[in-house]
Amino acid sequence: MNDYDDSEICRGRKPVLDLLTKNPSRCAKLLIANNVRPPFLDELVDMARREKITYQLVAPEALDKLSGGEKHQGVICKLTQSKAIDLEDFLKGIEGRTRVLAVVLDHIEDPHNLGAIIRSAEAGGASCVIYAKRRSAFPNGTVIKTSAGASLRLPVIQVINISRTIDRLKEFGFWSVGLDGDSEKSIWTERLPERTALVVGAEGFGLSRLVSEKCDMLMRIPIMKDGTGSLNASVAAALGIFEWTRTYGI
Amino acid sequence: MNDYDDSEICRGRKPVLDLLTKNPSRCAKLLIANNVRPPFLDELVDMARREKITYQLVAPEALDKLSGGEKHQGVICKLTQSKAIDLEDFLKGIEGRTRVLAVVLDHIEDPHNLGAIIRSAEAGGASCVIYAKRRSAFPNGTVIKTSAGASLRLPVIQVINISRTIDRLKEFGFWSVGLDGDSEKSIWTERLPERTALVVGAEGFGLSRLVSEKCDMLMRIPIMKDGTGSLNASVAAALGIFEWTRTYGI
Repeated sequence: MNDYDDSEICRGRKPVLDLLTKNPSRCAKLLIANNVRPPFLDELVDMARREKITYQLVAPEALDKLSGGEKHQGVICKLTQSKAIDLEDFLKGIEGRTRVLAVVLDHIEDPHNLGAIIRSAEAGGASCVIYAKRRSAFPNGTVIKTSAGASLRLPVIQVINISRTIDRLKEFGFWSVGLDGDSEKSIWTERLPERTALVVGAEGFGLSRLVSEKCDMLMRIPIMKDGTGSLNASVAAALGIFEWTRTYGI
Repeated sequence: MNDYDDSEICRGRKPVLDLLTKNPSRCAKLLIANNVRPPFLDELVDMARREKITYQLVAPEALDKLSGGEKHQGVICKLTQSKAIDLEDFLKGIEGRTRVLAVVLDHIEDPHNLGAIIRSAEAGGASCVIYAKRRSAFPNGTVIKTSAGASLRLPVIQVINISRTIDRLKEFGFWSVGLDGDSEKSIWTERLPERTALVVGAEGFGLSRLVSEKCDMLMRIPIMKDGTGSLNASVAAALGIFEWTRTYGI
C-alpha cells in the first residue's frame, strides 16, 4: 500500500514545517508535490537548503502512494531513524537547574497514550519523558501525531530498565513519586519535590511491584469514592504533571 | 459483518454487569453464550430476572457474529435507544445542593473525546455532562467504551443550544466558567464557584464566540509560554474538573 510505514514519514504542511523548524536532524529527505506553489514552496525550499536537507519535486500521485491514503497536503518528509536521546546527556543538560520534572512511564507502550502524555508533559513544563524500550520503536508517526508534535521537541528518552533509571535519577537529586490510587497520600496534600521523577503506570495494571517499591513516595489522585469511576492513564499523568507545574510555576 | 452496530450493543462481562447494575433500563435483551457456566451464568440470569430483562442462551458463534470480531466473553446486551436525560429533570434533581459541577461541551462531537471527558467528569465528582445534539446519537458504544462505563452512570444531557442552556443554568445559581487559553485569569488564581458550569470548547477552535460571550468568566489553564505546546481538549477538561474537585473536596 505504501512504501514507507507510518513511523518513517511525516506528512502535512504544519507537521512538516514543525519538524523542519524544531528538529531538522530527523529529516532524511523532503518530497514536495510539483503542484505546490509559492509562497509555501519557497518556504519549504529555503528551509531545506538552510538545513542542508535533500528535497525533490515529485508527482502528487507519488505522495498519495507514499502516504497510504492519508492527507499529505503536497509535502512529505522521510524521517531518519529516531535518535535515541541518552539519559546521561539529559542529566548533564540539567546541571545547575533546581526545578526539573521528569515523567517516567512504567509499562505504557500504547503509542496514543505515550503521545498524549508527551503532549501534556511539554505543555506542563516537564523536561523529559522516559519510557522503557521493549518491542516498540518510539517515537513513531502515531506518537508524533497524538502528541501534536511535542515528541519532536521534548526529549523522549528510551531506557532499558525503569528501576535502575529511578536509582540513577536519585543520584542526581530527583525524588521519585509514583502515582498509585491506593496510596493514603494525595498529590493535593503532599508537596511535590523540586526535582520530581513522576512515575506513571499503565491503566488497569498500575505500577509494577518492583518500580512501586523503588519509589520514594506513592501518591494518589483523589477521585470519587463510590468505586465506579477511574482515570485514564494519560489524564492521571496530566493531573500529576500540572500539580508540579502549579507548585513551581510556569 | 455484524447485525448490530457498535452503538447498539454492550459486550464483555464487566461492561454488561455494569450496565445491568447501574442502568438496567438501557438493556433491551441479554444474549448469553450457551457455554457460559455458573456462577457467572447464575449471576446474569438472576439479574436479568430481577430487572425483567429478556435473556436467551445462544451459540457462541452467534455472539461472534453480532460482535463483529470484538471479544465478548460470552455475553452481549442489546441496548435500547439511549434515553435522553432532560436538563429540567437534572435541575430538579439537584435542588438543595450547594455544590454542583456541570460540564458543558461546546462543539465537542468526537465520541472519543466525549467518552474521555465523561470518564473524568464522573471520577472528579461532576453531576452531569451537557453537550449540543447535532448529528450524532450519543452516547453510543464508542462513548461507553472510552468512558469506561461512566456514560452509563453519569447523567449525559443532550441540549439543542448551549447558549440558552447556560442561561437556564444561571437561573439555577450556576456561574459559567469558560476555558479559554487567551484569558488573563487562570484556574489557579481564581476560585471556581460552588455551582460551576465548566464550559469546554473543541481543541483548535475553542469556544464559539456566542458561547464565550455568554460565560460569566473566562479562565485559562496555564501552560508553557513558548507557544509550541498545547493541551488536548479532554486533558484541558480534566484539569478544569479536578480544579473544582480540589476546591470543594471529593
